[in-house]
Amino acid sequence: MLSKSLEHAKANRQRYLDELYELLRIPSISTLTENKPDIQKAAEWIAANMRGIGLQNVNVMPTNGNPVVYGDWLGAGPHAPTVLVYGHYDVQPVDPLDLWKSKPFEPVIREGKLCARGASDDKGQMFLHIKAIESILAANHEMPVNVKVIFEGEEEIGSPNLEPFVLSHKDMLAASSGLISDGRMISTDQPSLDYALRGMAYMEFRVKGPTHDLHSGSYGGSVHNPAQLVAEIIAAMHDTNGTVQIPGFYDRVLALSDEERDHLKRSPYTLDQWRTETGLKNPWGEKDYTVIERTTARPTCEVNGLWGGFQGEGSKTIIPAEAGAKISMRLVTDQNPGEISELFKSFVKKFIPDDYQVEFKEHVHGWPALTPIDSHEIKSAAKALEATWGKPPVMAREGGSIPIVATIQKELGAPVVLMGFGLDDNIHSPNEYFTVSHFERGVDTVIHYYYYLAGQD
Amino acid sequence: MLSKSLEHAKANRQRYLDELYELLRIPSISTLTENKPDIQKAAEWIAANMRGIGLQNVNVMPTNGNPVVYGDWLGAGPHAPTVLVYGHYDVQPVDPLDLWKSKPFEPVIREGKLCARGASDDKGQMFLHIKAIESILAANHEMPVNVKVIFEGEEEIGSPNLEPFVLSHKDMLAASSGLISDGRMISTDQPSLDYALRGMAYMEFRVKGPTHDLHSGSYGGSVHNPAQLVAEIIAAMHDTNGTVQIPGFYDRVLALSDEERDHLKRSPYTLDQWRTETGLKNPWGEKDYTVIERTTARPTCEVNGLWGGFQGEGSKTIIPAEAGAKISMRLVTDQNPGEISELFKSFVKKFIPDDYQVEFKEHVHGWPALTPIDSHEIKSAAKALEATWGKPPVMAREGGSIPIVATIQKELGAPVVLMGFGLDDNIHSPNEYFTVSHFERGVDTVIHYYYYLAGQD
Repeated sequence: MLSKSLEHAKANRQRYLDELYELLRIPSISTLTENKPDIQKAAEWIAANMRGIGLQNVNVMPTNGNPVVYGDWLGAGPHAPTVLVYGHYDVQPVDPLDLWKSKPFEPVIREGKLCARGASDDKGQMFLHIKAIESILAANHEMPVNVKVIFEGEEEIGSPNLEPFVLSHKDMLAASSGLISDGRMISTDQPSLDYALRGMAYMEFRVKGPTHDLHSGSYGGSVHNPAQLVAEIIAAMHDTNGTVQIPGFYDRVLALSDEERDHLKRSPYTLDQWRTETGLKNPWGEKDYTVIERTTARPTCEVNGLWGGFQGEGSKTIIPAEAGAKISMRLVTDQNPGEISELFKSFVKKFIPDDYQVEFKEHVHGWPALTPIDSHEIKSAAKALEATWGKPPVMAREGGSIPIVATIQKELGAPVVLMGFGLDDNIHSPNEYFTVSHFERGVDTVIHYYYYLAGQD
Repeated sequence: MLSKSLEHAKANRQRYLDELYELLRIPSISTLTENKPDIQKAAEWIAANMRGIGLQNVNVMPTNGNPVVYGDWLGAGPHAPTVLVYGHYDVQPVDPLDLWKSKPFEPVIREGKLCARGASDDKGQMFLHIKAIESILAANHEMPVNVKVIFEGEEEIGSPNLEPFVLSHKDMLAASSGLISDGRMISTDQPSLDYALRGMAYMEFRVKGPTHDLHSGSYGGSVHNPAQLVAEIIAAMHDTNGTVQIPGFYDRVLALSDEERDHLKRSPYTLDQWRTETGLKNPWGEKDYTVIERTTARPTCEVNGLWGGFQGEGSKTIIPAEAGAKISMRLVTDQNPGEISELFKSFVKKFIPDDYQVEFKEHVHGWPALTPIDSHEIKSAAKALEATWGKPPVMAREGGSIPIVATIQKELGAPVVLMGFGLDDNIHSPNEYFTVSHFERGVDTVIHYYYYLAGQD
């Protein structure tokens, strides 16, 4: 029962925090070799905690890198939802150490904030899921849903072994939806819920023309200058309205529903905020979409880098033999990063003269992810947030990309709920913290979520 | 009389060469401080030689750098042409010394080639002018034209003090035309004559948008990416026909006459040669003009450098705060480099949004120069070359720029004849040489020229 679970959580708040202190004291920095034993120690500590609360099949599973901790509780039966919870127990390095007001691995509470490396990203948010499950199991000896938990130890170094792990354990990880708390909400007074992430196709291309740099006094006017050619290609990528001109680029883009556009309009993000952050006055881009839509719900094509010829002081009169650019395209559902890369290449190739060469490098391929705003998962999460925070959440899309979300959605067929409980929290910086009330309300929100998801309210 | 002058030259060929040997033995390298005394020694040696042949007002004139040697013979009277002869007595350094087959400052003749640093560039070509004047004066005690001679000692370091010298000695240097031998002809069998040089306006611009690099996942699609903006500006500089689109760019361009186009068509430079030199198959550019015309007789606008954002290995997802480019425009008569720079700036500024900034740097301003192909000077020079080399010269334009030519033309109002007697000659490289027969025929050509210029043939 929901109420008994919440009571148990309330009665054990201090112990839950004390346990989190223990976990935060383990310096499980994934990028430093000297902390390798701490990684193992953190994984073992978490596994022990999970076993202690009644999770089953708990296992510290080796990968080619740091281990994944797995556990499940499947007693709700095959007809109940199965939730796959993801989090990570590794943390960022702590330098510069002298900017910390207290030691990064000796947690303390200052002004309602639990200060320590990993407090928010992601040990605090990860651990509240274990404590939500504990609250339900301890109070009821059963859960309204099945749960499977995976916590990885390589998120801060790019999760190199996570996708292979998911692909080779598809049966074990099979679930009806995913649940991740590794992000932020708008404010304590305004919960928010991300229901979509953009994907990415990051391309580099180099155009090669003459065999060597040519004297521009002797050959200028007779050679299609490769730097000019690269400029022509980039200029042709958008029309004056900011619409991407790569043929087929928008073909698979799922149109925004009126309901969704209404939700996005309610975002408290203002044009003044955009102005402060960019230092500019006037937004650019697709006229038919708001700035929020352009930056989170629409696919984009941006030049991230551009080069050719002489860049030093003064003057040099050459036609460069080659020039190039780095271009990243943010993708939305149902765009396919592989297909978009091919469309991009075809687009560029049309500009290349017969006697020139073009070389491509594909740097990043990431799928977009979307859990429909009217899905049962998103509605249940919104209801859980409103029940706990006293206000319905703002529904938001995230402009960036988190590869594991797309992997879970694509490989396991499970839509993912992104339930971030952080604020700014100085993550990746000195004096990282997690607001204590957010930890506590996070536990309560997850408890609500499981009952709502099971249709028990 | 022409014939007596030529006889004198023929009778003294060996002595003329012996004297050139003496000049070549002085290591007057202008870029090395330790050779400063040699610069002075070379200037004094030349002045002495000029006095010896009967030139008047010979003077080693100080500048803020190396001295200019001046001398004149003005006995032809105010109604005769006055020719200003320019040359330079300083030379390039000699490293790498071990690649020289003989010592750079100990001249020797190998297979008809006089080998030494400065043999062709420019001591040999400069000195043949003194010997042409000597031949006429010695044989006739007078010249058909007035001559003024200036030899500078800083050409190889960019002639920093020459324009100021010309500007402050306008009366002394007043002439009806200029004459320079500091270049090459097509081959021993095919003389050529450059009658035009292009000018230059070399511009750099930087576009600044957001106050700092922005995350392209968070702001992409809402900001006019400065790298894209620079690409848009560059792409707009030409139409698909290669015509420059800067308004007013062609307004002052002197149209090519049919006669001139006929001359340029006779150039032995072939498309196959262009293909070998560039490694490309198909020339680009203004369809209505030949490759020779595009590279020598038409103004151009070339990207020499281009940059913005991340250029390193891998990927970085930023919208760069700024981007820029270096653009050089080659100019032809009567384009004005200052005016063209302003037209360029106006063109660029039209693309800059209100809330962006653009910064310009002007690196080079050089005027174009042209001595009309049907001018008396060019016709006289062509006739002199034909008389000496047995074949009429190919009339050519030079795509590059030599600032002193424009200075003489513009400041003194004197059209300049570029009578280069060099071949490839390894100038600026080890084993520089000057073909002995070219030195001798050079003397004869200049003798012919003076008589033809004076209308005496």
